[in-house]
Amino acid sequence: MKSPHEHRVRVRYGETDQMGVVHHANYLHYMEDGRTRFLEELGLSYAELERTGCGLPVRRAQLRFLRGAGYDEELVVTTTVAGMRAASVTFGYVIRGADGERVATGEIELACVDLASERKPRPLPGELVELLRPWVAAGEA
Amino acid sequence: MKSPHEHRVRVRYGETDQMGVVHHANYLHYMEDGRTRFLEELGLSYAELERTGCGLPVRRAQLRFLRGAGYDEELVVTTTVAGMRAASVTFGYVIRGADGERVATGEIELACVDLASERKPRPLPGELVELLRPWVAAGEA
Amino acid sequence: MKSPHEHRVRVRYGETDQMGVVHHANYLHYMEDGRTRFLEELGLSYAELERTGCGLPVRRAQLRFLRGAGYDEELVVTTTVAGMRAASVTFGYVIRGADGERVATGEIELACVDLASERKPRPLPGELVELLRPWVAAGEA
Amino acid sequence: MKSPHEHRVRVRYGETDQMGVVHHANYLHYMEDGRTRFLEELGLSYAELERTGCGLPVRRAQLRFLRGAGYDEELVVTTTVAGMRAASVTFGYVIRGADGERVATGEIELACVDLASERKPRPLPGELVELLRPWVAAGEA
Repeated sequence: MKSPHEHRVRVRYGETDQMGVVHHANYLHYMEDGRTRFLEELGLSYAELERTGCGLPVRRAQLRFLRGAGYDEELVVTTTVAGMRAASVTFGYVIRGADGERVATGEIELACVDLASERKPRPLPGELVELLRPWVAAGEA
Repeated sequence: MKSPHEHRVRVRYGETDQMGVVHHANYLHYMEDGRTRFLEELGLSYAELERTGCGLPVRRAQLRFLRGAGYDEELVVTTTVAGMRAASVTFGYVIRGADGERVATGEIELACVDLASERKPRPLPGELVELLRPWVAAGEA
Repeated sequence: MKSPHEHRVRVRYGETDQMGVVHHANYLHYMEDGRTRFLEELGLSYAELERTGCGLPVRRAQLRFLRGAGYDEELVVTTTVAGMRAASVTFGYVIRGADGERVATGEIELACVDLASERKPRPLPGELVELLRPWVAAGEA
Repeated sequence: MKSPHEHRVRVRYGETDQMGVVHHANYLHYMEDGRTRFLEELGLSYAELERTGCGLPVRRAQLRFLRGAGYDEELVVTTTVAGMRAASVTFGYVIRGADGERVATGEIELACVDLASERKPRPLPGELVELLRPWVAAGEA
């Protein structure tokens, strides 16, 4: 297991709500950004993967919101690989605020599907498995 | 010209921002809802239209924001046909708050494109032209 | 335990993504709508509650996505009370598509906080507890 | 007039719609990001400005959409000052795609308001006027 991937995101005005903090739904976008950049850094473009007919829709999400994050705050999204199976992969997330405190944590499971045949389940592409295997948390692979 | 179409929408929590009112970008969604329901009432499903390969992407938008709208407020979106050309149609909008006051107004021009051939411009489908013609503002058709 | 609350929502164009179905983050907005309407039907306005200084931010969300939902599809959001504690309440959700099939399910825990004092935890207002108690799933209250 | 400010933004998955390109409402968020970073580079934090009780809500937007932008595409948002009055400022925008082609253009007028007294109009703060004056397009100041 290697050191986790970090992605920085600045909170947009339109992502806050009238409570004065980020609306909780937006964390799913930040996490999506996190895994996209993580895969990109490993050399895999998710956009390219979809063009080959392979999609990774979200099947399950578990989220905890620990404190509010403010407009324009720079958040750090840490992405790890929490687990991998034949036809799915689960990413783990910790999002920290400008003060280093945890703002939100999560686990997102993506199913691998065939975009050409009505999103039928299919095994993860071998290339993706090879790239992610070294990152799977110890005892999980 | 007939009496305009009205669509009611309740402001969602996540549509407000930290100023305590609807974030301006959301009015484009409300207006999109307005024209979808308008077309539906005329007997035309935009979802169905796209399945025939014809799309109506937004090409131009002119928006004015007159006062803030609050969380949970019921807004009334009035949609009219401001103009129609061979390959585009322009909808006009007035959005009023619970007190009847104008919250936002707009004009949205949609281009007609062929979804199968890289969104190349094409004439509006005859069926759409027939349905909208009676609604075009006087002196505009 | 009474029969659950149902709220109908039509999928907006801007809520779909390039996979041709609703982007998963939007289900959090649909669920938020569901509990707002549920409370409203019980006679409690969440907007009003916030004006008294009491907020209910989301603390935890567990979501499962079972099939994609399409543009313009009418979804039925069923909201139940999955549990209630001194300072938090958990809503349960089943979202069904136009065909009656389950599209997504979830559980959302809201913490009760004092909006005036930096969102410090506080007990649920007595009025809210009284309204929700009859709806708590058997054996959970 | 100086050379314009550039801000780079990557298109998120959830910002695309089923037409396979960025949903038009999202350009308003990109433009908001553009002016926030522009002001920041000039030494003014919009978040800080709001804490002093001065807000800049959008009063008017004029947008043109020239071609679609794809998922994960890096867009360049160029922000200029199109005009300034006693109680409002107008920003101009050109958004270009990865190929340098124009994707969207716009003009956004912000009104200056007093957040403490129901968003009543007020003059732009002197500090903001001083910072923006050198950037106002020739013949516009």
